[in-house]
Amino acid sequence: MRQPFETPLRRIPTPKGDVLHAMKMDDPGFVGFGEAYFTHIECGETKGWKRHSAMTLNLVCPSGTVRVVVFDGTEFVLDSVISPDAEHTYKRITIPPGYWVAFSGLAPGHSLVLNLASLKHAPEEAETVALTTYPWPT
Amino acid sequence: MRQPFETPLRRIPTPKGDVLHAMKMDDPGFVGFGEAYFTHIECGETKGWKRHSAMTLNLVCPSGTVRVVVFDGTEFVLDSVISPDAEHTYKRITIPPGYWVAFSGLAPGHSLVLNLASLKHAPEEAETVALTTYPWPT
Repeated sequence: MRQPFETPLRRIPTPKGDVLHAMKMDDPGFVGFGEAYFTHIECGETKGWKRHSAMTLNLVCPSGTVRVVVFDGTEFVLDSVISPDAEHTYKRITIPPGYWVAFSGLAPGHSLVLNLASLKHAPEEAETVALTTYPWPT
Repeated sequence: MRQPFETPLRRIPTPKGDVLHAMKMDDPGFVGFGEAYFTHIECGETKGWKRHSAMTLNLVCPSGTVRVVVFDGTEFVLDSVISPDAEHTYKRITIPPGYWVAFSGLAPGHSLVLNLASLKHAPEEAETVALTTYPWPT
């Protein structure tokens, strides 16, 4: 199974409003377009654990700050903060199928996550378990 | 030339943060994935006019409020406000190649626009002229 990985993204300042890259068709992590959707995550809340059996996720945070944790069933394989507000945190997280994923909102109000998914959402392709099922890294 | 058009989008309330649809691979307006990128538009600013010769744009506003105007060289063919903050304004705007496009930020701070573009950005494929080149609908 291929590991989850991060790809730095460019944020290009312009006077009327910045341009923020998300994904190109020949970027690492792109394995086809199935669906794009946004998720809000309220400050202090955590969504997860969810595991996809076929979908590759590509997560980008264009607003707010989000902590993303990926667990392979034995150990944490990624634990990262994504946000467009600092150069080193503006990045894309690619998560191949088969991993447990959870994410938390760290910014006031809600943060925004774009998932550029390789497949359309289908309930039978995703499994969700309670957050308490696995430990949360501290 | 096919006309620009709007597609209503769903915003699904959930306790830890809403889910907002953007585009599925079999949705109207999807003609292939080339690149996804975000544009900020500061309040009161207008970006445009820009015309793509080959790219189809699919514009979604996940934060703030944006007015999108499309001009065919003779008349305005679309003039729409997009925002996730009201049910009737959360929609996707599909703009085939060949149209002049401009958009304004209407919300305090910056608004956010996602373009799910059918091609990767390439300077030679886009033409920009000054905002004053064409009248602005009032």
